[in-house]
Amino acid sequence: MSTPPPVLVDIKFNPEGVTRVLKTAFADRGSINLADPADRLRDLSAAEYALLWKPDADLFQRAPNLKVIFSGGAGVDHIIGMDSLPEIPIVRFVDRSLTTRMSEWVVMQSLMHLRGQYAHDISQRRGEWAKLIAPEAAEVTVGVMGLGVLGQDAVTKLKVMGFNVIGWSRTRKEIDGVETFDARELDAFLARTDILVGLLPLTPDTTGFYDSGLFKKLRRDGALGRPVFINAGGGRSQVEADIVSAIRDGILGGASLDVFEVEPLASDNPLWALENVFITPHDAAVSEENALFRHVETQIARFERGEPLQFVVDRAAGY
Amino acid sequence: MSTPPPVLVDIKFNPEGVTRVLKTAFADRGSINLADPADRLRDLSAAEYALLWKPDADLFQRAPNLKVIFSGGAGVDHIIGMDSLPEIPIVRFVDRSLTTRMSEWVVMQSLMHLRGQYAHDISQRRGEWAKLIAPEAAEVTVGVMGLGVLGQDAVTKLKVMGFNVIGWSRTRKEIDGVETFDARELDAFLARTDILVGLLPLTPDTTGFYDSGLFKKLRRDGALGRPVFINAGGGRSQVEADIVSAIRDGILGGASLDVFEVEPLASDNPLWALENVFITPHDAAVSEENALFRHVETQIARFERGEPLQFVVDRAAGY
Repeated sequence: MSTPPPVLVDIKFNPEGVTRVLKTAFADRGSINLADPADRLRDLSAAEYALLWKPDADLFQRAPNLKVIFSGGAGVDHIIGMDSLPEIPIVRFVDRSLTTRMSEWVVMQSLMHLRGQYAHDISQRRGEWAKLIAPEAAEVTVGVMGLGVLGQDAVTKLKVMGFNVIGWSRTRKEIDGVETFDARELDAFLARTDILVGLLPLTPDTTGFYDSGLFKKLRRDGALGRPVFINAGGGRSQVEADIVSAIRDGILGGASLDVFEVEPLASDNPLWALENVFITPHDAAVSEENALFRHVETQIARFERGEPLQFVVDRAAGY
Repeated sequence: MSTPPPVLVDIKFNPEGVTRVLKTAFADRGSINLADPADRLRDLSAAEYALLWKPDADLFQRAPNLKVIFSGGAGVDHIIGMDSLPEIPIVRFVDRSLTTRMSEWVVMQSLMHLRGQYAHDISQRRGEWAKLIAPEAAEVTVGVMGLGVLGQDAVTKLKVMGFNVIGWSRTRKEIDGVETFDARELDAFLARTDILVGLLPLTPDTTGFYDSGLFKKLRRDGALGRPVFINAGGGRSQVEADIVSAIRDGILGGASLDVFEVEPLASDNPLWALENVFITPHDAAVSEENALFRHVETQIARFERGEPLQFVVDRAAGY
């Protein structure tokens, strides 16, 4: 039996890490790493599987015989919009490690807003002993938008920490012990929410979704005083000019942002310096290369045994 | 039946909150609030129950007929050392709300160290897009010292967040799914610990306990690079000069401190400005007055029904 063709890899993050870990991945067939100058011009026509994150625009012309596309992260918006995207399955990256890291970030940001970390930090810089009596988690409702693998894990952990948690998804999801809302009940969901956690995938429907109009619908008489917006979903789901004005006008009391309309965020962007806003540079849930390559190996093995692929994207929904 | 004598209250924190909430507490017998000028000079000789936090030095002379002493917080070191302390039961404050708040703080501080919040904050102030690839929680071992109600709740929640968690107490406690150590195994416990969480009560044994010698025994080859010290137990359990030198010399990679040798912490104390050290002004787990008074009412009712009091301090152990 001939050796199967190598896996095509075009991942636009952490090139050193990808190159290092690729050496021991896909032992049965090898890989072509487009980040490696030696591989850049290779013939891709035999490739059957491609692992992609923000791939080259001409990738599908160069690799016309793909059978499955794997995304290098949880999101697939970087692929879905591409010209000449072939009609083959697209598989998202779902991984325990990715999920755990995202929940670490979501819980930490929620706690920092609950416990007044920004105010404590200012006092610390001044050497001022200024006790804050924060509400306890049970007095604060966290509304999680997006109830896929990431959202459901965040819901579970926020609940363990004591928060009151509600959930929203386009079509209703049933989650034990959590009140959930669907597309038609958006306003009711927002009116109950003190801390909004955005984990929605970026799709045409969610582009520009978190805007002034939405922020104004959040609960205004909650224990935190003013609502907080946390986003680790799609950067282009948020209207950043509206976040800036909402913070300045007191419509929002704070925010935590890991994703942005344009990345990297420009050094003169006003978001960096807003009161009670925490910025992280899209590192809330970094795909760990070992886990990513294992996931792709597992799915290729399933596919070649004739079993159904897991985590396949619904192209009509966009995620 | 005559009205029972009022409850004696001498709590040296949040006088406005105490005064406000006392109005509706102890409806069957009322209270004498020593923080209220109108009550200051009242005859205390009939008082049977006293609720105390850092009470006046002459309190027990003025109130010689007490039957039970209630502490206004989880600690009792502010009472145990007093002259003329009568030989009556001392009841600690144990409360779901107090426990939840402490775990919020412990989990938040642990996550801030895991996820490099200090480094992120510096980058944010500079407007710099600087991704950090943090280890995930499972690669980091949190060692919790003190496995009472607070410690056990922290252990549970740290585990849910994915941390590897081990526990230490003077006498061994069995906790499902958690490796625990006792007094004789201190060095083995420290050698496994990346993030040390101190929740020990302040006693003669634990005074000056967290010192250079102890910090040097913490694990030095863990995923965080250098170990971290977190303390929300007794302030005088830590040697602050040793914390300062350990941070400066790289023996510790960071710290989170809610308690101090002398409170409030002086504005010129070097702790405020140390690298990767988070300071909070003894507000990690503030006793909520409503919950505190309900707890005291419950225990008085048990006592008067002839049932055993709960959360009674072991005076020999000091907590």
